[in-house]
Amino acid sequence: MAKPVYVLNGPNLNMLGKREPGIYGSTSLAEIEADCRNRAEGLGLTVEFRQSNHEGVLVDWIQEAGESASGVVLNPGAYGHTSIALHDAIRAVGPLPVIEVHLSNIHAREPFRHRSTIAPAATGMICGLGPIGYALALEALAART
Amino acid sequence: MAKPVYVLNGPNLNMLGKREPGIYGSTSLAEIEADCRNRAEGLGLTVEFRQSNHEGVLVDWIQEAGESASGVVLNPGAYGHTSIALHDAIRAVGPLPVIEVHLSNIHAREPFRHRSTIAPAATGMICGLGPIGYALALEALAART
Amino acid sequence: MAKPVYVLNGPNLNMLGKREPGIYGSTSLAEIEADCRNRAEGLGLTVEFRQSNHEGVLVDWIQEAGESASGVVLNPGAYGHTSIALHDAIRAVGPLPVIEVHLSNIHAREPFRHRSTIAPAATGMICGLGPIGYALALEALAART
Amino acid sequence: MAKPVYVLNGPNLNMLGKREPGIYGSTSLAEIEADCRNRAEGLGLTVEFRQSNHEGVLVDWIQEAGESASGVVLNPGAYGHTSIALHDAIRAVGPLPVIEVHLSNIHAREPFRHRSTIAPAATGMICGLGPIGYALALEALAART
Amino acid sequence: MAKPVYVLNGPNLNMLGKREPGIYGSTSLAEIEADCRNRAEGLGLTVEFRQSNHEGVLVDWIQEAGESASGVVLNPGAYGHTSIALHDAIRAVGPLPVIEVHLSNIHAREPFRHRSTIAPAATGMICGLGPIGYALALEALAART
Amino acid sequence: MAKPVYVLNGPNLNMLGKREPGIYGSTSLAEIEADCRNRAEGLGLTVEFRQSNHEGVLVDWIQEAGESASGVVLNPGAYGHTSIALHDAIRAVGPLPVIEVHLSNIHAREPFRHRSTIAPAATGMICGLGPIGYALALEALAART
Amino acid sequence: MAKPVYVLNGPNLNMLGKREPGIYGSTSLAEIEADCRNRAEGLGLTVEFRQSNHEGVLVDWIQEAGESASGVVLNPGAYGHTSIALHDAIRAVGPLPVIEVHLSNIHAREPFRHRSTIAPAATGMICGLGPIGYALALEALAART
Amino acid sequence: MAKPVYVLNGPNLNMLGKREPGIYGSTSLAEIEADCRNRAEGLGLTVEFRQSNHEGVLVDWIQEAGESASGVVLNPGAYGHTSIALHDAIRAVGPLPVIEVHLSNIHAREPFRHRSTIAPAATGMICGLGPIGYALALEALAART
Amino acid sequence: MAKPVYVLNGPNLNMLGKREPGIYGSTSLAEIEADCRNRAEGLGLTVEFRQSNHEGVLVDWIQEAGESASGVVLNPGAYGHTSIALHDAIRAVGPLPVIEVHLSNIHAREPFRHRSTIAPAATGMICGLGPIGYALALEALAART
Amino acid sequence: MAKPVYVLNGPNLNMLGKREPGIYGSTSLAEIEADCRNRAEGLGLTVEFRQSNHEGVLVDWIQEAGESASGVVLNPGAYGHTSIALHDAIRAVGPLPVIEVHLSNIHAREPFRHRSTIAPAATGMICGLGPIGYALALEALAART
Amino acid sequence: MAKPVYVLNGPNLNMLGKREPGIYGSTSLAEIEADCRNRAEGLGLTVEFRQSNHEGVLVDWIQEAGESASGVVLNPGAYGHTSIALHDAIRAVGPLPVIEVHLSNIHAREPFRHRSTIAPAATGMICGLGPIGYALALEALAART
Amino acid sequence: MAKPVYVLNGPNLNMLGKREPGIYGSTSLAEIEADCRNRAEGLGLTVEFRQSNHEGVLVDWIQEAGESASGVVLNPGAYGHTSIALHDAIRAVGPLPVIEVHLSNIHAREPFRHRSTIAPAATGMICGLGPIGYALALEALAART
Repeated sequence: MAKPVYVLNGPNLNMLGKREPGIYGSTSLAEIEADCRNRAEGLGLTVEFRQSNHEGVLVDWIQEAGESASGVVLNPGAYGHTSIALHDAIRAVGPLPVIEVHLSNIHAREPFRHRSTIAPAATGMICGLGPIGYALALEALAART
Repeated sequence: MAKPVYVLNGPNLNMLGKREPGIYGSTSLAEIEADCRNRAEGLGLTVEFRQSNHEGVLVDWIQEAGESASGVVLNPGAYGHTSIALHDAIRAVGPLPVIEVHLSNIHAREPFRHRSTIAPAATGMICGLGPIGYALALEALAART
Repeated sequence: MAKPVYVLNGPNLNMLGKREPGIYGSTSLAEIEADCRNRAEGLGLTVEFRQSNHEGVLVDWIQEAGESASGVVLNPGAYGHTSIALHDAIRAVGPLPVIEVHLSNIHAREPFRHRSTIAPAATGMICGLGPIGYALALEALAART
Repeated sequence: MAKPVYVLNGPNLNMLGKREPGIYGSTSLAEIEADCRNRAEGLGLTVEFRQSNHEGVLVDWIQEAGESASGVVLNPGAYGHTSIALHDAIRAVGPLPVIEVHLSNIHAREPFRHRSTIAPAATGMICGLGPIGYALALEALAART
Repeated sequence: MAKPVYVLNGPNLNMLGKREPGIYGSTSLAEIEADCRNRAEGLGLTVEFRQSNHEGVLVDWIQEAGESASGVVLNPGAYGHTSIALHDAIRAVGPLPVIEVHLSNIHAREPFRHRSTIAPAATGMICGLGPIGYALALEALAART
Repeated sequence: MAKPVYVLNGPNLNMLGKREPGIYGSTSLAEIEADCRNRAEGLGLTVEFRQSNHEGVLVDWIQEAGESASGVVLNPGAYGHTSIALHDAIRAVGPLPVIEVHLSNIHAREPFRHRSTIAPAATGMICGLGPIGYALALEALAART
Repeated sequence: MAKPVYVLNGPNLNMLGKREPGIYGSTSLAEIEADCRNRAEGLGLTVEFRQSNHEGVLVDWIQEAGESASGVVLNPGAYGHTSIALHDAIRAVGPLPVIEVHLSNIHAREPFRHRSTIAPAATGMICGLGPIGYALALEALAART
Repeated sequence: MAKPVYVLNGPNLNMLGKREPGIYGSTSLAEIEADCRNRAEGLGLTVEFRQSNHEGVLVDWIQEAGESASGVVLNPGAYGHTSIALHDAIRAVGPLPVIEVHLSNIHAREPFRHRSTIAPAATGMICGLGPIGYALALEALAART
Repeated sequence: MAKPVYVLNGPNLNMLGKREPGIYGSTSLAEIEADCRNRAEGLGLTVEFRQSNHEGVLVDWIQEAGESASGVVLNPGAYGHTSIALHDAIRAVGPLPVIEVHLSNIHAREPFRHRSTIAPAATGMICGLGPIGYALALEALAART
Repeated sequence: MAKPVYVLNGPNLNMLGKREPGIYGSTSLAEIEADCRNRAEGLGLTVEFRQSNHEGVLVDWIQEAGESASGVVLNPGAYGHTSIALHDAIRAVGPLPVIEVHLSNIHAREPFRHRSTIAPAATGMICGLGPIGYALALEALAART
Repeated sequence: MAKPVYVLNGPNLNMLGKREPGIYGSTSLAEIEADCRNRAEGLGLTVEFRQSNHEGVLVDWIQEAGESASGVVLNPGAYGHTSIALHDAIRAVGPLPVIEVHLSNIHAREPFRHRSTIAPAATGMICGLGPIGYALALEALAART
Repeated sequence: MAKPVYVLNGPNLNMLGKREPGIYGSTSLAEIEADCRNRAEGLGLTVEFRQSNHEGVLVDWIQEAGESASGVVLNPGAYGHTSIALHDAIRAVGPLPVIEVHLSNIHAREPFRHRSTIAPAATGMICGLGPIGYALALEALAART
């Protein structure tokens, strides 16, 4: 039986829907999870969906994915702009494909969000497309196999 | 009858398949166009597919899209790193959705490619996923309507 | 019954009194907690006082404060100079007032302490006034209601 | 018979009136052309009024002005922030007077608009005064002769 | 009889209440002065309250405070972002305590307001808390004696 | 009876004609004042013309203009490159129109003159056109009413 | 009985041997631990050897070492390039000697690895010498007593 | 029959001889073309000599050279300091040798001319030697075959 | 009768002797004035010695010196690091010789003191030699005549 | 018979013991040489120990080491922060192992000492451990064979 | 009899052929010298060919060339990226023509090689063309006479 | 018998009088030496006067001065802008007074001359006053004893 795709979410994404809806939209993380499971089913994938506010936990999960997953969709939240540990974790599990997703267009916001410290280690990035970004990332992973 | 989606390609993308396949892959622009038409049909969209090495022509086309298109998929090539004129053209046709696509992961290449001058004006960006990035952008446009 | 004010302390603040007294003074965190409870009583407030070395725990607590607190006094310690996750957590619980406190004058120390990554999201900042900074922050919160 | 003044307009200025009226105002480029002809008549000048989205075309026109014009009013649009070729063209036709005009106050907008690459080669600059800036530039040219 | 606390206000603070109330609030400087006198009385302090638009006058007053005051509350206004002369004046009267106050949160505004040139010489800073910042600074001074 | 336009001149402009004529021309400030009065008469305006070497005095005058003037033409001289106090004074009297004028082309001189700290607060800027810049600024003010 | 030396390892070091062997070599962390115990025995030291992906846990351990250890060998992994909290923890337990170790030559890799945020607080650094770096650090600690 | 060498000239080079002779000398582009043909004949080469003010046209020509030329001598003019599109075009036709030529010593002029955006993609560069630079570039190309 | 040398002193120099003697020494400004008069007498010069905390007053005095002085010794204090107005005043009175003096070695102090904004306009600079710097500057002026 | 290890010392290291003992300790270079010979004997190595204040001599010696040495311990002194010639010399003798040693912790000193221009070419670096750093470097070299 | 051309070579160029042939090629410096003598003979020139690892020696030789040479071909090696002394020596012997040569394309290598500190003083530069660069420089010198 | 003052001159200063007289004047180094001896005699000092183009020789001489001189006048020439080795040599001979002299006003020339790397270690600096700067430095040294 095939390994699942890990869909990992970083800090404050559990606040989606409640948090600054003008920027992040009104969809909750539970709804995004449901959309992911839906899309995954259509693509013949299964999904392991998680969220944490702890950088170390995200590092743990990416290492775990190196053993247990066929790919990763990673919305790193704010850690995407500061974490080299996540960057290194992605490299450490290479060549596992990891697609970075941001709900908002990070390039149209504050300068400190323009830079992703993990993007150089990731396969690619989707940003600014809202919740459908997760589904598109799943499809991109499916197309790689 | 619905307006088409404009899929616009910038400088040197006509060289795809021949040009640095280690970075850009072996798919030609004609094959990407075929994929786009295929995907568009499945989504109930039509596609106007063009390429130019001229910044001014790309500005002309985006202005034209403001009248004639329901959305734009734009792979700006190198102009994506230098052109404020394209940035302004995208703003000038707002709120027309424009999704920026890069075949390679611009964040994993030379520093001068890390910055996109047009991203702040675009709806969102997909990069590093290869030719399927175009198809995903079309799907994201279809989902907005 | 009114919600308490959360007084949250970041990394190494549990070392106060022992740690570099020339910079941070000889007051322990327990003494600061006692001062806070004292002052809060005079202002008709109650205080929930906590410390953690973990950025993720501080993010968790700020999210919790969004439900359970009437305001936050946050001494972010070193995370105040690097954490965007804390910045986003504060925004996510807006308009909850959050006052940043630093015991030492961060502007008179090493350059990497001059910048606060969370200040743009906070209501205001008090720094350089030593332990009384906590009490003043409580008073400022009391004055907002 | 006297040489005309060239009034040259760069990328996206053909969108005036339609494009971001909060920034650029509601006057169309045709109306600005009419104002220019009007003012020029009062000053005893004639006007050659053009617009192009192509950097190379603007360079061609400035070179042509070196032969055929008594002065240039140049609204370089976005190329004013990136083009060294326009800067060099202006130098190449020196001492022909060239006055740079911007409708909006470029110093009060995004940082990438604060810098003009062509200003060091131009006679002077008028910005932030809206359509009347063109007329004032014509008057300044008239006063030089 | 004890020396008074000098409360010194820099350029444009005489415009408070009239000037950009969205940023600076609707309280006038006279009302702040009244609040200060009120609070000072409760703390057993007297207050010398002044305002000037002239950097040199503020330098004069700080030198005078070195002789005649027990402490200084200084809202330097815009000079707080550019003046080294004020920085040096504060050092010259050391160890007289000087607390810098800003009504707005300078870290949440334009980049040129993020830096305080005088903060490295001051005892500490209170910003973003509005008019109560003056009262809190008085209390901090009172607590030092 | 209509309020006058204040024409305010900053440091060293009283030296015009004597000072570096290769850069600033041979026209004296008195001649510029005469030109201004002349042009103003034609536009139905009156002019209050002043000069000071003191930043604080210029701040005072701009605040006064908020009460007594219909607009300001401001040649800030060197303070235009360093003063945030003038920037704030202009904001404080908004929406009074203030047009910044420089005789020389500040963009073609030393790098420290390329930046105007007051331009983001001003209505617009005219530079490099010599003494006629004052007259053009008056005309632009007249056109706003 | 003498206090042990703490040998602390940061994020992704549990992946050694599996992770990018071209950069980090083929020795596992367990083998390094064995080498450390071996060398420590020869030096009359005991070793407490730990690894964590969590910045906060590393801060906790350094604080613990302040009580329980005679010195620290710290391979901070990626947190060595971003963590001020670790920097402060090392200062807080001063004058306990802390030697920073990196397996690879951080100066010969990506620019973001050239800077160590903790080095200014550490006693010294050994980098680029591979696993023997740990043993040399132990010897340096032994030589200090 | 052997492929020709393309000698391509960028913006404003058609103005040579007329344009700033103090910097660029008094030789016209036609004279340089004649010199090139002369030297090429001696080297057994033929020359295709062109000039354009349009970045896109230069990109087109380099792509064409990939098919039709044995090497390129490229004087990019001002586009040499800004164009990534030309950089990419040169890479796209690799390993075709492309030698960048500048008449003036770009390192001895304004800072914005010190950097060549196309040099990293070119075989090498000759600058500051005047018109003979073209002939030397032809000789270098001849020596490679 | 010969014009005097103006010896002008900027902000906080009236505090000499009292102010941070570890940096500025224990000599008062009155003692420096006496030394200057003494040395001047030996050189056949007279001295006009003044101090002000006001940037505008210093500008006024330099303009006055253009009429009334044979040279200027200027200790600009903190304004030497920020004032372009003083820089311009010195240029405006050229070719009057102006020698900048600093008591302390500005290059060995905080980074914001390393740069002198007026030095590019001055004849030369003497720093770090304490009160004798004034006397040496007078001698240098005497030697120029 | 095996080649010796070259232990090369740069400028001012001949002053050790006399020079700023608070930073560099009280051990003389002769004592370090004795320690090196001692340790080398234990490791079965011989040592060639030299010092020069001349960058060119150090380059000569590294080139010589490429022929005559089995490895190099290099304390480059101040040239370690500026010399690209030494960097290139190390590369030119690759794969000869070269270990950079600094007595003090260069990361805890002035900013201009934080960067080593030769580290990217060296095998690794030991800093901040005092004279034992030389011995540890010898041991690391011994372990490579 | 005519003065010779000095061909001067900086640090590590004596290692050519042995040193990093992937970058610098397999030609030795002796072969380059032979080529230079060969080409010089054809041009009616004589050549004085030298190499040194010492910056001061290169400065001495350039000063000597000011007396004894008709021109200089200078491959400064690494000193070309750091030496202002060489820059000044070239200026000091002006107007003697000095052509800077680099074997490799310095713009396509590490960032610290992109900048030449001596280029602003040199006549021109040839880089990236390998050993033939020396011959072309000789030809350019011959053409100047 | 008293120790002499060392007057040390760096690269290219032997060219004085011949080299760029517009910048450095027409006085030769021999004339400066004569002036120094003259002035020294009047001050009761003896002078050891030397020049070298070699950074290492200057370092040697400063170390020698630590033993044999009562003070140093150092015109470092171009090495004053790059040499940390000279900076360290000056510190190593502390508290020997070392006065840096530059003939020209380094702050009024190219940006790379604005910074002195040795000034932070020197006692003070005299620049821009021409040859008399040496005499003034001798007098300042005499005044210290």
